[in-house]
Amino acid sequence: MIEARKFISQIREDREHGASELARTCLDALARHAGSIEVTSNGALRRQLIEFAQELQSTRPTMAAISNLIGEWIAAVGRLPAGNVSTLRDDIKSISTTLILASENAVSLAAAHAAELVGTGKTIITHSLSSTVVAVFACLVGNVKVIVTESRPPSEGRRLAAKLSDLGIETDFISDQQIGRFAKRADVALVGADTIAGDGSVINKAGTYLLALAARDRGIPFYVCFESFKHSDVSPVDIALEEHDPAEIDPPKLAHVRGHNIYFDVTPPNLVTAWITEHGVSQQASKAHF
Amino acid sequence: MIEARKFISQIREDREHGASELARTCLDALARHAGSIEVTSNGALRRQLIEFAQELQSTRPTMAAISNLIGEWIAAVGRLPAGNVSTLRDDIKSISTTLILASENAVSLAAAHAAELVGTGKTIITHSLSSTVVAVFACLVGNVKVIVTESRPPSEGRRLAAKLSDLGIETDFISDQQIGRFAKRADVALVGADTIAGDGSVINKAGTYLLALAARDRGIPFYVCFESFKHSDVSPVDIALEEHDPAEIDPPKLAHVRGHNIYFDVTPPNLVTAWITEHGVSQQASKAHF
Repeated sequence: MIEARKFISQIREDREHGASELARTCLDALARHAGSIEVTSNGALRRQLIEFAQELQSTRPTMAAISNLIGEWIAAVGRLPAGNVSTLRDDIKSISTTLILASENAVSLAAAHAAELVGTGKTIITHSLSSTVVAVFACLVGNVKVIVTESRPPSEGRRLAAKLSDLGIETDFISDQQIGRFAKRADVALVGADTIAGDGSVINKAGTYLLALAARDRGIPFYVCFESFKHSDVSPVDIALEEHDPAEIDPPKLAHVRGHNIYFDVTPPNLVTAWITEHGVSQQASKAHF
Repeated sequence: MIEARKFISQIREDREHGASELARTCLDALARHAGSIEVTSNGALRRQLIEFAQELQSTRPTMAAISNLIGEWIAAVGRLPAGNVSTLRDDIKSISTTLILASENAVSLAAAHAAELVGTGKTIITHSLSSTVVAVFACLVGNVKVIVTESRPPSEGRRLAAKLSDLGIETDFISDQQIGRFAKRADVALVGADTIAGDGSVINKAGTYLLALAARDRGIPFYVCFESFKHSDVSPVDIALEEHDPAEIDPPKLAHVRGHNIYFDVTPPNLVTAWITEHGVSQQASKAHF
């Protein structure tokens, strides 16, 4: 049995996983909850699960995939026929499984498209840790070098470096301030996304916008690769950028000094060379194209 | 008496002070060395001091002020008349004092010009810790807010925040990845420089180039303020950018993973709105104008 409150706060506090992984973790939790929650009627099961799902939807406002995939789940549960509780539990579990697979397949396909676009023998600079971008690197093993940024806080670039080391990929590890210098040594900049806004803006870990600016100034393409579940219809100005406890960056405790810890930034569509999803590669920012 | 070898390695290893401060520290050491070194002839005193000075000149290739100010010192010592050792010691000390004052005055004047250009009631975003920029803030106390970046490594933004706190200036402290987001909240970007190259490029702490890119994209001016002793005739591609021990950024120790720690970057002149020195404000990159 899932402890719903505890799980919700785990998702809210998670600093380890990207949006796709967290969305699938939520779908899995909904399936497990469906299998174990104590109810006697079909209506009560549906009601309690949908309440849980709606709470999960709002845990990470900067990550559209969570809200979108759970939204699909809620809609599909709503379409299930009335029936006995046991059948309903199984049907709900199967909805979760289907959506998890759809998300995993979308990531794999998007990564394959990106690997094809980048081509072999290139040096790729990336920022933050995206499971989609790791899937691209996995497609290119033996034919790629990578420049990894530390990506503070919480420095998930260190975990990316470990994954690349395991894959045997030659990796340069830099602190975030060196992005400008190293963009010059790369052939391609490639990132994942937490959300793609209605206008094609990329909402991703703070520093992504700086990498995009450096890529443009250095004349290298800036690609973003994501499953289309990450698309949001809203304007980037209406997407809340999560601000976490400034203690994570250990600001000096001094009169007149206030620390800030905004986790994400917005890269406008004019800095993006191509959007890559399971549907292919688009050089246009419109949702219709990805 | 100065332990010359120890002093040289202190200057080489210093991560706390900017180029102007280090240059003046070298001039002061030359004066002290002139006063205490054991020699019997005018010629031996001159020779030994000039050797020491030449070694100091090459300690920090990325900081032109050190090479330039010591170069002026060597030239002035060369022009001193022959005479007894005691008079020569005094004359050399007075050359150091004069150059130190010239540098301090240049910094104060440059800061006054910058403060006038920025004007009152503005929010300034800066990167790294420049004593010249601190002098600008001191001119604007009561009429300025500041956004300070951590500036890793070694996070000299923390010391800047302490100086601003002492001055009673409202300060926002951010990690380096947040530069893009916070450039939007600033009216002006203002930095010092380690060296200004022949074409007006700004060689400064890694991350400065990212701030300049963000300033341009956000539509705010990017000013650089410096004493003209920081000017170098050489092209930016010929200026060595110091690389320090990667251990400072604690790169993961993994197979296939290599850490880098390039301390400086180059901001090209097309990203600079104005160069501000003791001679005034110039919007042109030519040395003739600053």
